[in-house]
Amino acid sequence: MELFKNALAAAAFSPEKMKKVNLFDTERMFCDVYGLKAGQEQTAHAHAGSDKVYFVLDGIGRFRIGDEERDAGTGEAVLAPAGAPHAVRNNGPGQLTLLVFMAPKPS
Amino acid sequence: MELFKNALAAAAFSPEKMKKVNLFDTERMFCDVYGLKAGQEQTAHAHAGSDKVYFVLDGIGRFRIGDEERDAGTGEAVLAPAGAPHAVRNNGPGQLTLLVFMAPKPS
Repeated sequence: MELFKNALAAAAFSPEKMKKVNLFDTERMFCDVYGLKAGQEQTAHAHAGSDKVYFVLDGIGRFRIGDEERDAGTGEAVLAPAGAPHAVRNNGPGQLTLLVFMAPKPS
Repeated sequence: MELFKNALAAAAFSPEKMKKVNLFDTERMFCDVYGLKAGQEQTAHAHAGSDKVYFVLDGIGRFRIGDEERDAGTGEAVLAPAGAPHAVRNNGPGQLTLLVFMAPKPS
């Protein structure tokens, strides 16, 4: 596996839905880049035993973690703790690019 | 724990050595921000069962992962797989700010 990756350059976008690109993948964790065009979202879901961290590489996302809902923009990090329902939506008008870490890797 | 954090704003720097600030800490992983002034470094070390991902928030770092050594700048992500000796140095002249994920959390 290539150990050095440019996260923003790896981002991809699809007109149909949020696009995931994997940067790193091990037995213990993964690190992805998500690209969301305006109006796209990752709907609410939860991972029983895994924590997820979002880092906003570019743009503004509307995050919902459990009962908390707020915007986070470039440079902000958001924790979705194990078991907490979480969702993110790009209300536009620009694109949204996220760096995403999850551990342990869901089976 | 606060679920939303501004990573760059959380960074701190010390004249003595690299400064670590924790953003998120769970049973499974942690997410820190490292601040390195010019000339500071994290010397080579390894974690037998944990993967680390560095993301360069600002600046340029000289990374060594196993036998590979190269610079990574703002927007680049670097994987230090479990067991691989890894080190990072800020050769200056600017500051270096890193977002760091490690999973699972070393005991």
